[in-house]
Amino acid sequence: MRAVDLLKKKRDGLELSRDEIRFWVHRFSRGLVPDYQVSAFLMAVYFRGMSGPETVALTEAMQTSGALLDLTDLPGRKVDKHSTGGVGDKTSLVVAPAVAAGGLTVPMISGRALAHTGGTLDKLESIPGFQVRLGRERFKEILRDIGVALIGQTDDLVPADRKLYALRDVTATVDSLPLIASSIMSKKLAEGIDGLVLDVKTGSGAFARSGEQAEALARAMVEIGNACRCRTVALITGMDQPLGECVGNSLEVEECVEVLRGRGPEDLRRLCEELAAHCFRVGQAVTGLDAGRELYRKMIAEGRALDKFREVVRLQGGDPAVLDDCSRLPQARHRREIPAPRAGFLGAMDTEKIGWAVGRLGAGRDTVDSSVDHAAGMRLHKKTGDSVAAGEPVCTLYYNSEERCAAACRLLSEALEVADEPLPLPALIRRVIE
Amino acid sequence: MRAVDLLKKKRDGLELSRDEIRFWVHRFSRGLVPDYQVSAFLMAVYFRGMSGPETVALTEAMQTSGALLDLTDLPGRKVDKHSTGGVGDKTSLVVAPAVAAGGLTVPMISGRALAHTGGTLDKLESIPGFQVRLGRERFKEILRDIGVALIGQTDDLVPADRKLYALRDVTATVDSLPLIASSIMSKKLAEGIDGLVLDVKTGSGAFARSGEQAEALARAMVEIGNACRCRTVALITGMDQPLGECVGNSLEVEECVEVLRGRGPEDLRRLCEELAAHCFRVGQAVTGLDAGRELYRKMIAEGRALDKFREVVRLQGGDPAVLDDCSRLPQARHRREIPAPRAGFLGAMDTEKIGWAVGRLGAGRDTVDSSVDHAAGMRLHKKTGDSVAAGEPVCTLYYNSEERCAAACRLLSEALEVADEPLPLPALIRRVIE
Repeated sequence: MRAVDLLKKKRDGLELSRDEIRFWVHRFSRGLVPDYQVSAFLMAVYFRGMSGPETVALTEAMQTSGALLDLTDLPGRKVDKHSTGGVGDKTSLVVAPAVAAGGLTVPMISGRALAHTGGTLDKLESIPGFQVRLGRERFKEILRDIGVALIGQTDDLVPADRKLYALRDVTATVDSLPLIASSIMSKKLAEGIDGLVLDVKTGSGAFARSGEQAEALARAMVEIGNACRCRTVALITGMDQPLGECVGNSLEVEECVEVLRGRGPEDLRRLCEELAAHCFRVGQAVTGLDAGRELYRKMIAEGRALDKFREVVRLQGGDPAVLDDCSRLPQARHRREIPAPRAGFLGAMDTEKIGWAVGRLGAGRDTVDSSVDHAAGMRLHKKTGDSVAAGEPVCTLYYNSEERCAAACRLLSEALEVADEPLPLPALIRRVIE
Repeated sequence: MRAVDLLKKKRDGLELSRDEIRFWVHRFSRGLVPDYQVSAFLMAVYFRGMSGPETVALTEAMQTSGALLDLTDLPGRKVDKHSTGGVGDKTSLVVAPAVAAGGLTVPMISGRALAHTGGTLDKLESIPGFQVRLGRERFKEILRDIGVALIGQTDDLVPADRKLYALRDVTATVDSLPLIASSIMSKKLAEGIDGLVLDVKTGSGAFARSGEQAEALARAMVEIGNACRCRTVALITGMDQPLGECVGNSLEVEECVEVLRGRGPEDLRRLCEELAAHCFRVGQAVTGLDAGRELYRKMIAEGRALDKFREVVRLQGGDPAVLDDCSRLPQARHRREIPAPRAGFLGAMDTEKIGWAVGRLGAGRDTVDSSVDHAAGMRLHKKTGDSVAAGEPVCTLYYNSEERCAAACRLLSEALEVADEPLPLPALIRRVIE
């Protein structure tokens, strides 16, 4: 087997066998295939796509390219939730503790802010002292103790994906469905989970702009998960405007604490409930979805989800007092209210642009190595369809740099608009694919 | 301008500007774009193709990536002939001296045997002492003296093409029309010529199997040449069987000497005459093609083409006595005649397989670094459509190794067949594109 022959086969649209894909991935992850052949292969995949069996084989090969997290000695079923990312998407901080409170184990390995979307790790790190880098043993210990821990990717897990992703980033091959699906799924499956709930976003703030793209990605990931003996379900959900009211790290933590207390914005509460209910179902804590929703509501109502989050914060080195007094979270020095230019109804949003604006405020990264301003962010007072009076605040910006604020305002003025008529709101939860 | 943005543009099928292509080529030829981005770009070009203006811009950028041969101080017009390669294709050794004898300057830079096709340099090197590596100054000196010299690629000419070709070879991106066209044309145009005649082969022994492929390649190259102020014409010619009777280095030199004496196989003589006539025309030595043919026949009949070849051999260090006594060329120790298995007519040939067979005999290279057996080769006694008696020799093999001969015989038995009816012969010269 020669790398160039496999390359030619993919170029010509022929299907690669499982062995051929394994050969390819294992050799390149050990540095035995030069990058220039890998990048040509990635571009051929961009154009030719991959069949279902090819995508499953790629995922398995990447998943086994490094260490695996062996959780078989932990009691009970392990589940996780993954989102393809959106603006103000913070459900992990609610769903993970709620599902663990309901009796399942949630070994959640998350990422950082990338491009315009926020990262769970950055949100958690806005809690003073919170550690997202735990050793494998400490991670398992916490999971055994309280059933949930939220950490960052470790170096030894799925190294092939890390290598591949770095190459895709500089060769214009990120936007390929099978590569996206296998990248996400290889990392999730390496957690050693029995069940997985995917939140696939679609709309102006999502990678998948159209419902069809989101559905295709969801189907590919569900197929991979189920082929790998992990019960997988995907929800296609709307990202036509930010989720909840807050965007920005410490503001989002504050909003999650609200939801864990049974309060907070309606859309965020609704989505957390659905995701948790599906987690309970794929983890076989309940048999039906209604029972899952009920279990979630019970965990919220009895304060057990919040207690679980408090335990996570404490065991991962954070200050649990934050949860009772959110003023202990990093606070921005300045605020600015953005008024509506005229009376009407808040229109469709360019959600990606809102993401970039909040990123410019300091909540995101300019480059991979730059740091995040945990206090920077925005709070929406109006959402699409809400009526606004002329001059009424549409949102408030929280920031530490006037220069950054000015840049964010320019972007926001293009992202938000006032319409004459209220827009019909697209559904938050569009489809369930399993 | 960032390399990844140009990559994305090409991936998405948008047209790159001349400046963008120049930026890309000049940066990567100086090692400022990593190979993995170049190979992803090549694969994107494989799928998206290139527009005419893009291909011209790529050619110009490659052509100017290194030193240029400045022949402006040589008197008269400079022309060259290039073939896309075929089995037994040896016309350069006749056309170059004949055209120089007719008054034009022919600065021919050629290649070596690659895959199953022979290389002009290897043929010339079968003449004892012949040097194909001349310095740039010596090359110009000989051109000034006698109007023709035949040398190999120098390191400083078109380095971008050399780099690109090495990468294409290992990334399955050789078979791309704009990349092939710009690779050939950048090297030819770097010779500083005023006119160019292309011999684009089609058939079972050619890269372009179909007439459509050959025509598309020819049109792309003619467009490039004319856009770069080099009067360019392409002949689409048949490669359904070897050209002439001989395949193999010293055997082909011997056959060329025959043609220079006005003898030799009909198809080879005919093609040399057409190519030379077109050279005379693009070099403005004559106004019409008939006058070009007449001038060629005069150069042959008066022995001036052969004299010119004798001068080339002498000035490039070879033994000119070879031309009067071909037994001074390397001779194989063994011969084997291959008999017809039954009576009938020689059928269609798998010409590529004949090329591989002769390569296995020793006339080609197993790897880029291996050496060539100049004496090894074959002589066809019958060509497609000729009648054969059972047991009558179809061809003779010339070889130095029984093992190699056995391997060649196996391939030949699959490449040659006897049919019941004579096949209608496809035309040798199919089209002229200018």
